[in-house]
Amino acid sequence: MNKLLTFNSLSYSTSLQPRMVQPSLTVRKEGVGRCTKVHRNFNLEKLRNGYLFTEIARRELQHLEKYPNAKVISLGIGDTTQPIPDNISMSMANYARALATAEGYRGYGAEQGNKELRKAIAETHYKDVLVKESEVFVSDGSQCDIARLLLVLGSNVTVAAQDPSFPAYIDSSVIVGQAGDLEDEVGKYCNIEYLECGPGNNFFPDLKGTSRTDIIFFCSPNNPTGHAATQNQLEQLVEFARNNGSIIIFDSAYAAYVTDGCPRSIYEIPGAREVAIEISSFSKFSGFTGVRLGWTVVPEELLFSSGFPVINDFNRIICTCFNGASNIAQAGGLACLSSEGLEAVHLVVDYYKENTKILIDTLASLGIKVYGGINAPYVWAHFPGRKSWDVFAEILEKTHITTVPGSGFGPGGEEYIRISGFGHRESILEASRRLEALF
Amino acid sequence: MNKLLTFNSLSYSTSLQPRMVQPSLTVRKEGVGRCTKVHRNFNLEKLRNGYLFTEIARRELQHLEKYPNAKVISLGIGDTTQPIPDNISMSMANYARALATAEGYRGYGAEQGNKELRKAIAETHYKDVLVKESEVFVSDGSQCDIARLLLVLGSNVTVAAQDPSFPAYIDSSVIVGQAGDLEDEVGKYCNIEYLECGPGNNFFPDLKGTSRTDIIFFCSPNNPTGHAATQNQLEQLVEFARNNGSIIIFDSAYAAYVTDGCPRSIYEIPGAREVAIEISSFSKFSGFTGVRLGWTVVPEELLFSSGFPVINDFNRIICTCFNGASNIAQAGGLACLSSEGLEAVHLVVDYYKENTKILIDTLASLGIKVYGGINAPYVWAHFPGRKSWDVFAEILEKTHITTVPGSGFGPGGEEYIRISGFGHRESILEASRRLEALF
Repeated sequence: MNKLLTFNSLSYSTSLQPRMVQPSLTVRKEGVGRCTKVHRNFNLEKLRNGYLFTEIARRELQHLEKYPNAKVISLGIGDTTQPIPDNISMSMANYARALATAEGYRGYGAEQGNKELRKAIAETHYKDVLVKESEVFVSDGSQCDIARLLLVLGSNVTVAAQDPSFPAYIDSSVIVGQAGDLEDEVGKYCNIEYLECGPGNNFFPDLKGTSRTDIIFFCSPNNPTGHAATQNQLEQLVEFARNNGSIIIFDSAYAAYVTDGCPRSIYEIPGAREVAIEISSFSKFSGFTGVRLGWTVVPEELLFSSGFPVINDFNRIICTCFNGASNIAQAGGLACLSSEGLEAVHLVVDYYKENTKILIDTLASLGIKVYGGINAPYVWAHFPGRKSWDVFAEILEKTHITTVPGSGFGPGGEEYIRISGFGHRESILEASRRLEALF
Repeated sequence: MNKLLTFNSLSYSTSLQPRMVQPSLTVRKEGVGRCTKVHRNFNLEKLRNGYLFTEIARRELQHLEKYPNAKVISLGIGDTTQPIPDNISMSMANYARALATAEGYRGYGAEQGNKELRKAIAETHYKDVLVKESEVFVSDGSQCDIARLLLVLGSNVTVAAQDPSFPAYIDSSVIVGQAGDLEDEVGKYCNIEYLECGPGNNFFPDLKGTSRTDIIFFCSPNNPTGHAATQNQLEQLVEFARNNGSIIIFDSAYAAYVTDGCPRSIYEIPGAREVAIEISSFSKFSGFTGVRLGWTVVPEELLFSSGFPVINDFNRIICTCFNGASNIAQAGGLACLSSEGLEAVHLVVDYYKENTKILIDTLASLGIKVYGGINAPYVWAHFPGRKSWDVFAEILEKTHITTVPGSGFGPGGEEYIRISGFGHRESILEASRRLEALF
């Protein structure tokens, strides 16, 4: 019997809410319509395909068109699925209600974020490493601040990024003109230094063989591999940056998932304040993927070569190109960082971690080599000798499960699939059953 | 008796909630601390001073330090002060509460905005000009989309902007490297084409004497002058752009304030769809300055010189450098566009317009020549022969009223002051009394 039919006929309740994608845009041919004389930005011409997660959403929708009754399980984009804890939701609702009153109405807030929230972030996430409230800038999510950081740095800096890594680092670098040309045969941009991270080097690059760059994007716990860098690895990274006069942009969006004692912040490493910016987010920590809230830390000690503080330029960009995160979302962020809020969001994090463990156990029992998943909600599954888009397509076609092909995160992700532990428990269990049936 | 003492001793209830500013950042001297080897972005070195409104907020706080008991009235930044209508606030609260339930929880939304909201914007604001839902991109405010539009266009385009104009246009152009060097003696960037708009030309530039540029920023009703361009003026502008193959970035953030029949959208002008992007906002329309919501329209017919649609590249930037506006804010936006919501927000707009009329009448009665204020919440007051920063400082010092010096909007704003009609009625009446006492 056809497996597809089996899955289609399940009465299983799906968690599918596919991210809406922009209706397909028809590229007009030259000469059709009336063109302006404005040339297309040549940096954008260098971008390959659509943005990875837009492409995944598009494939998911395409699959649904083909199998309208399929109960698709989305373990792709890494979207949170569990309700926001009650006290946090209530704080946002109360704030929104107060906006209808003379006493509670607030207009423009500080572009850098509300003082109380900046203070709470500093005290909750950076208590032992002495980040100051004034060094915390509240954002509408770390993806947005990646672009703003690149606006700060300009197009004349050189960039390194883990390979594989979250695609916004490299795509944003391409957009601002830092990446150089794409070398199609290897799938790399010629001006980007790719820091290979795989099982062969315990997911930490060989820094002796790494060229100096101005900027080093480093994500830990890593998206997509799920590996959290150890204290020793991050000490090497900070030493490398200090010796080279580089700036690390450290992405700690998954810090809440660390369980084995690995650092949750780059500032746990001595000397990091002079070489590192940290971007982070409430998205995966508190289920704020749709509410939109994050933050960036720029230490006062971080200086350009002239001695000019990076924080001054970041502040200028925040004031000119951003106008602060939604005040309602910020009220929610503050509630997340209350003791009641923290207790509640950690329960949700634990729930996703349990999901991830179920997926790891399933895949391991099938003889598939898996990495990550201990300190992150992502499982990084190896399919030796296979193209990751092929594995992605096979899994989607045969099990109606969306994953993310590893090569979408860079050439170093080839042969891998990222499977997300975000989802309702029943979806995860059902996905496990389908994967067991497939492999 | 010292006027200041008079004002200080008033028991008048102030509306002051000064926008928090980043605690002053000490610029380190070269050689102090340990510098990285990363060079400061030379585009940022070209920016003059801080961002205008950050500077205004800083001056206001400085003033409060000098006069701790002063009842400062802020007619500067243009910040909304009236509560959000009840049904809109309730919609956001309900949405936030639903996020705590299995049925109501939502994670990532579409980067381009929720479909219902895009549809409602198209149908409410562009009903007669046939903007499609798929051409509307929801943002967290038009200031943010200005920066994202410049990321789309890159650094190799030439730019024109009204002089005076909202400072984010030119500052963002400087940041992405489009502006060239600042010519200090005239206060202009050498690669920017300044479109002089003043009483002498009915606030519309002499296009015959204007050089072609790739991009033309045009704001109507204008911030700061308050002038709404007429149908005829906008027809000239569109014809100019079509003849030159330019792209107009039309800012309609104050469209709700138009009363005398002037166009509220550039798409009311035939042929505009092939040459114009429109950015707009819920900030001044619905008091969402702190809630953060706006939108940008990119018509499908707008093409780069190669025929490649601009909408495709804008969509790519939205997906890569932005992750959608807060879903709670979007729920509020949808409520604004319901018939009940529209009725309520228009009452608030009328309230601000009445404020503006009070200010106009006061200034006119004092023999001060004023412009704007009919189609916009801003009064543009002329002080012939005087430096606008001096007028700003005198008004602040002697009346504890914050305004904005016209030259902050460009050299064409010299001799002018922008006075905002946003505020509680009692503040506006009190401000009028103080101005009467001063002049």
